[in-house]
Amino acid sequence: MIIDCHGHYTTVPAAHTSWRKDQLAAWEAGTATPRYPDISDNDLRESIEDSQLRLMRERGVDRTIFSPRASAMAHHEGDETVSRQWAEACNDLIFRVTQLYPDNFIGVCQLPQSPGVPIANSIAELRRCVEELGFVGCNLNPDPSGGHWTSAPLTDRSWYPFYEAMVELDVPAMVHVSAVTNPNFHATGSAYLNADTTAFMQFVQADLFRDLPELRIVIPHGGGAVPYHWGRFRGLADMLKRPPLDESVMRNVFFDTCVYHQPGIDLLFEVIDIDNLLFGSEMVGAVRGIDPRTGHYFDDTRRYVEALDLAADDREKVFERNARRVYPRLEQLIKA
Amino acid sequence: MIIDCHGHYTTVPAAHTSWRKDQLAAWEAGTATPRYPDISDNDLRESIEDSQLRLMRERGVDRTIFSPRASAMAHHEGDETVSRQWAEACNDLIFRVTQLYPDNFIGVCQLPQSPGVPIANSIAELRRCVEELGFVGCNLNPDPSGGHWTSAPLTDRSWYPFYEAMVELDVPAMVHVSAVTNPNFHATGSAYLNADTTAFMQFVQADLFRDLPELRIVIPHGGGAVPYHWGRFRGLADMLKRPPLDESVMRNVFFDTCVYHQPGIDLLFEVIDIDNLLFGSEMVGAVRGIDPRTGHYFDDTRRYVEALDLAADDREKVFERNARRVYPRLEQLIKA
Repeated sequence: MIIDCHGHYTTVPAAHTSWRKDQLAAWEAGTATPRYPDISDNDLRESIEDSQLRLMRERGVDRTIFSPRASAMAHHEGDETVSRQWAEACNDLIFRVTQLYPDNFIGVCQLPQSPGVPIANSIAELRRCVEELGFVGCNLNPDPSGGHWTSAPLTDRSWYPFYEAMVELDVPAMVHVSAVTNPNFHATGSAYLNADTTAFMQFVQADLFRDLPELRIVIPHGGGAVPYHWGRFRGLADMLKRPPLDESVMRNVFFDTCVYHQPGIDLLFEVIDIDNLLFGSEMVGAVRGIDPRTGHYFDDTRRYVEALDLAADDREKVFERNARRVYPRLEQLIKA
Repeated sequence: MIIDCHGHYTTVPAAHTSWRKDQLAAWEAGTATPRYPDISDNDLRESIEDSQLRLMRERGVDRTIFSPRASAMAHHEGDETVSRQWAEACNDLIFRVTQLYPDNFIGVCQLPQSPGVPIANSIAELRRCVEELGFVGCNLNPDPSGGHWTSAPLTDRSWYPFYEAMVELDVPAMVHVSAVTNPNFHATGSAYLNADTTAFMQFVQADLFRDLPELRIVIPHGGGAVPYHWGRFRGLADMLKRPPLDESVMRNVFFDTCVYHQPGIDLLFEVIDIDNLLFGSEMVGAVRGIDPRTGHYFDDTRRYVEALDLAADDREKVFERNARRVYPRLEQLIKA
């Protein structure tokens, strides 16, 4: 079985996206939130069949851990209520997809984060998604300000109540920022990668995983800059008198394989232990084109992993077993 | 000849650092700036001989393109006058080192940047350093706010007057941020790498090098996350309908080799054209320890490059010729 741990619902029906625009317009105008539109099962099937599901079938991917479009989370827009309504609408849509295609999609939720609002306020939606909708994890935004980094680091105690709920529910979080309003950053070109690197270094500096040894975090996009600079991070841990990375961070942190060329995947697998790697593609997502050098989609990351010619056991870990281990509720769903 | 394009004077005499503290204290108190201390040539020799110069000799590095300590630039501290005084003091110290060791050190200057202050105000100090002190380049901070990213992107027209002065003086800039006050970031662990990635993506998105084809930029720390994600950046250029990276960015942008493990250097040289790579170590700097896996200093980057077993011509490019091409005033100094 091949499990993609990182898929976003970027091909939602137009009515969903239109509602979001109307919702924000209503909030700005101070008028009532418009009624969420009727979206039929057929609308959902159309939005999935010829994009995400077709690509999964073409690439031989069996299941995708599926979450709302990351760049559209836009936690900086509106206020807490706006973010809650939007998160609920996005998560409900993901839930419907998982019900229509229970063998292909497993839900991961967006959180109703909002700048300056305690993360504890996101616990209720996490709980709803996990306990009522059968989701297996969440996307956690370390910068709900949209590129201004006004929150406390992920290792600050203010995040702990949410982490404790994650541990109780036995679900991991993927660290994932969203759209940016700071013109210095391009969402998929720099903000995402920067957030990955930033989160990792925060984990290096603090005792988060000593305090919460059961907490599991997925850092997407191949870990940002981290594997490429693995020597730098090992050396910094040493300089800062922190424990070695394998002890202090890598029991709890996992990287996906969203790296869109062979040399990057080669490095990732050379440097990072196989037990810390989850197959992922970020599909349909950040980079949609075909690489003229290979004739294949940039984000067809299965090809790069297959080209490694891994031992059977390692291959199975990356494509399946690690995901089932990091997302225990996925394991339960598959067994059921 | 082996030229290190990225060395910082991190071992300055204590009197210099003390003066900075006093300068900032005086500014905060609203009192007169204290007189800069007397620092003898012997003080300078002591600060260099047993650290930077010893390490250069041990590693077989002939010359270092030498600039003030990057993390101490701290453009966010004080105001424009404070930054100007500090930049002048730091640059004058670098100048003295280049005079004491003309065969070993070539100067690159710190700029008197300050948040919200036009970059054009830094032209005078650039000109002084190049024309009067014989410097060959500058460090340009894309985020003088210290981790809050409140400036315009490097491709914004507001930076152009400075770039035009660089072109006129025929000097490149290394993009280099400094200390951060934003607790989300660790200077050398995430802020530096993020800035490198951010700057590169800004260049991908805009026509800066079409407007200024003679402008040359060095992105340090092996290009941040960029080479590891080279497929992502090639794919994003395609998606954004931008020209291929080789045409739009890589005629003007160069990466150093400050990547502190062999797999990272292997990837860098596999992915990036040899003409775009400058040998660098960031020494004495970010990571000072010895890698227990190799028994050698993390930042002894010459070892990683030598292990590539490059063809003689390529080796000479990375260690010497590219630096002499990117820094034409260095070429003049060596010839003289």
